[in-house]
Amino acid sequence: MAKIKGNAISPTRREDYAEWYQQVVKAAELAEISPVRGCMIIKPWGYAFWENIQKGLDALLKAAGHANAYFPLFIPKSYLEKEAEHVQGFAKECAVVTHHRLEAGPDGSLVPAGELEEPLIVRPTSETIIGAVYAKWVQSYRDLPILLNQWGNVVRWELRTRLFLRTSEFLWQEGHTAHETSEEAWEETRRVLEIYRDFVENSLAIPVIAGAKTPGQRFPGAVETLCIEAMMQDCKALQAGTSHFMGQNFARASGIIYQSREGREEHAWTTSWGASTRLIGGAVMTHADDDGMVMPPRLAPAQVAILPIFRDPAGRRAVLGHAEGVAAALRRLDTAWGGKIEVVVDSREMNAGEKGWEWIKKGIPLRVEIGPRDMESDSVSVGRRDRSPREKYSLGREDFIASVPGVLREMQDGLFARARAFLEGHCREIDDPEEFRGYFTPKDPEKPEIHGGFAWSHWCGGRECEDRAAGDLSVTIRCLPPDREKSGPGKCIVCGGESPGRVPFAKSY
Amino acid sequence: MAKIKGNAISPTRREDYAEWYQQVVKAAELAEISPVRGCMIIKPWGYAFWENIQKGLDALLKAAGHANAYFPLFIPKSYLEKEAEHVQGFAKECAVVTHHRLEAGPDGSLVPAGELEEPLIVRPTSETIIGAVYAKWVQSYRDLPILLNQWGNVVRWELRTRLFLRTSEFLWQEGHTAHETSEEAWEETRRVLEIYRDFVENSLAIPVIAGAKTPGQRFPGAVETLCIEAMMQDCKALQAGTSHFMGQNFARASGIIYQSREGREEHAWTTSWGASTRLIGGAVMTHADDDGMVMPPRLAPAQVAILPIFRDPAGRRAVLGHAEGVAAALRRLDTAWGGKIEVVVDSREMNAGEKGWEWIKKGIPLRVEIGPRDMESDSVSVGRRDRSPREKYSLGREDFIASVPGVLREMQDGLFARARAFLEGHCREIDDPEEFRGYFTPKDPEKPEIHGGFAWSHWCGGRECEDRAAGDLSVTIRCLPPDREKSGPGKCIVCGGESPGRVPFAKSY
Repeated sequence: MAKIKGNAISPTRREDYAEWYQQVVKAAELAEISPVRGCMIIKPWGYAFWENIQKGLDALLKAAGHANAYFPLFIPKSYLEKEAEHVQGFAKECAVVTHHRLEAGPDGSLVPAGELEEPLIVRPTSETIIGAVYAKWVQSYRDLPILLNQWGNVVRWELRTRLFLRTSEFLWQEGHTAHETSEEAWEETRRVLEIYRDFVENSLAIPVIAGAKTPGQRFPGAVETLCIEAMMQDCKALQAGTSHFMGQNFARASGIIYQSREGREEHAWTTSWGASTRLIGGAVMTHADDDGMVMPPRLAPAQVAILPIFRDPAGRRAVLGHAEGVAAALRRLDTAWGGKIEVVVDSREMNAGEKGWEWIKKGIPLRVEIGPRDMESDSVSVGRRDRSPREKYSLGREDFIASVPGVLREMQDGLFARARAFLEGHCREIDDPEEFRGYFTPKDPEKPEIHGGFAWSHWCGGRECEDRAAGDLSVTIRCLPPDREKSGPGKCIVCGGESPGRVPFAKSY
Repeated sequence: MAKIKGNAISPTRREDYAEWYQQVVKAAELAEISPVRGCMIIKPWGYAFWENIQKGLDALLKAAGHANAYFPLFIPKSYLEKEAEHVQGFAKECAVVTHHRLEAGPDGSLVPAGELEEPLIVRPTSETIIGAVYAKWVQSYRDLPILLNQWGNVVRWELRTRLFLRTSEFLWQEGHTAHETSEEAWEETRRVLEIYRDFVENSLAIPVIAGAKTPGQRFPGAVETLCIEAMMQDCKALQAGTSHFMGQNFARASGIIYQSREGREEHAWTTSWGASTRLIGGAVMTHADDDGMVMPPRLAPAQVAILPIFRDPAGRRAVLGHAEGVAAALRRLDTAWGGKIEVVVDSREMNAGEKGWEWIKKGIPLRVEIGPRDMESDSVSVGRRDRSPREKYSLGREDFIASVPGVLREMQDGLFARARAFLEGHCREIDDPEEFRGYFTPKDPEKPEIHGGFAWSHWCGGRECEDRAAGDLSVTIRCLPPDREKSGPGKCIVCGGESPGRVPFAKSY
């Protein structure tokens, strides 16, 4: 068991990408499916990663003037119905609360009782309930802007689920803002997208392409949806964050009316934006390899695992004491991003090789073995998660300690550079419809999930061409980048009509 | 509007305690009722207080070896039914999900559709779902202990709600642990109670009495429930945290079975424990006064509000620059409890008196006015929330800055000392049934909520005597303190039977 021949994760990415993903999530102890259909259990290592994501993103949102608040889990059905497109978008995946107690039925078993006059929907998103509250809070332009964010759980009923990527319940933050003018709301929509881009690229080390969704891909009820799109290692796109400009749609639906500076009654302009536990799935599919998870050092639950090696109780005591000393010295150090280095001393009594592999699979950036011989030479044996699991180097204790902040920074930058090279290496400008079809058709029918990448092709802007391009290839336009026109004009890949510039087409999660 | 004659909160505590509470919560902008029956909206100032409560308690729980995780929001009905007492305890207040989509009905309006085979209960607490998962995780004694905590929302349907104290949805943490032996589980139950006591007394500045619940007041399914009980300013008790020893009840119900060191199959021993947003209500009712909220400095969303005073744009610029300088100097300081001092510079253009009252009502520990004259003399004008709102003192800028950590510490200690004196001043040893009755009977029928306090009386241990004491007085035994016997033996206040020591009887929330 201690020795792993070949890779720690079976199957590998090439063998079966979808199953590899499930196995990595399992081996890294990030999450597992629960006995409740469609819902997941986020395990301690996965939840600690989520806590770091929350902390990092929350700090950026607060620095930009947002405050956190909390609104009800339940949304009355009539609220959801206020915005026609919105309710259409969510009606098919609603968890509906219809009763408020259980009572003994005719056969003695408990049955739902106390039927509600109006069913309640477990929030799939909170635009309508928050809109109703803002309508109460806002009287005058002096009450604007309102810049609130909420961390919580939402439910969108799913029959086919995949851990982190698509589950009936997931955790997220949803921001909801109300403004005096269209310009301010637009500025907010863009500012938050930039926060998402900054966070996902610089903290999660996931490169993204930012842009606007096509009309057909907008959030139900939005005037415009901005998004960031990442590329997973199977070359599919993952939407990693969205920021919606609602115009006055939700203000009209909810009655958010303010008296303007000129004394007129106006509808407010609103935005909403969210990022979720999906980001964890994105980090797995961007960084993990055939040996398991690779945590971006900046958000890793811990950066260093110290693995003391001992044979007997006396040796154990000596080595553990020494290991705790190294840990204490490391914990005093700042990372390159502020905050202290987190260190785990794994003193469990188990096979050293097996223990090392556990930490490899969990993706901890640095593994440090310390045994009696290392103590004698005052050195440590170090394994980096961005190198082969079998590659270790020995270093004097003090030199090692001093090196850690720099090595972590180097690993963080290296992960991002590698992911960016992957993304750039899997983009192709395609103008020929046959080549387009070939690009998205699996070469190997046994490995349907490994295929082309992002096809940068021309699009005339027509909904029909978008649908036809998608067609049986399941390809969508991921976004319209703001600098689209830099690529120069051309002919739509579907109809040959005029296109102002290329857009990325891809398969997606 | 700027000048407030008398008190900022109407009615006062003496006039109408229940209404005073609602008015403080409103005036401090902590929370408000939502359009969804029974659910509250936690506003930014209240939520920031909650975030600090979470941060403080989370650190203590993690230091004691607990990790956070996340389990599903929904509990299948059959899971809840596994433990007979447990389901009885919660069946009457369950939000039941019966359908998973909405569809156009005969009249075109949307109706629940996609009926679930088994109804799902929105978790009122997670023992049964977490128990089912632990049963999967645990095989051997080597898999124990499991020490997990979860931060999340729960729903217990309530018809009569009161902000923070009793709402259908509330936020909390719930810990769930599984152990190899009864002793270990007992130790855990007590350790967490001590964490709660430490946190509530030393961070929230709320003195408590710790002890065990009587059998009739235990958590549904628990073998023993430990609790901490605080006294509000109307002399009612508030249960501020509970820690349950489950014995093997839930392990039996869920099948948490491990192979022991001797190779036998044994049921694990489990505990659970929780503290909720109710603590915010407890802080209001312990510290607030007739001018609004009084935040314990250690957990206040901000410790200092700087209120620049200006008359015109040029003056505004100068004063704001100066105020930001003071704020920056304060933000570099550590509080007595670790962490930096949080400062708000309130630059809104509004009446200075009105602005000051807003911060008084929000309960910020220190208000600092800086106007052109203060700038000239390089001084500031300071108001402390633990003194009269009209009392201010002037201090040189640098002296003031240097004084802040010490003043905050003094205020924190002062709040606790005052609350402890109140608690001690409203405890009475009562041995005469008539006196007991009189103690809990309002002297003034117009003010039914201001009455005696905690009656320390003898109890024989009989359920019937407990119920009869409660009777029409709505008085319960709050807990059985571990040092109960120190008070010496006596005769039960109800039946005259033998009692090993006094216990606190009180009305409660």
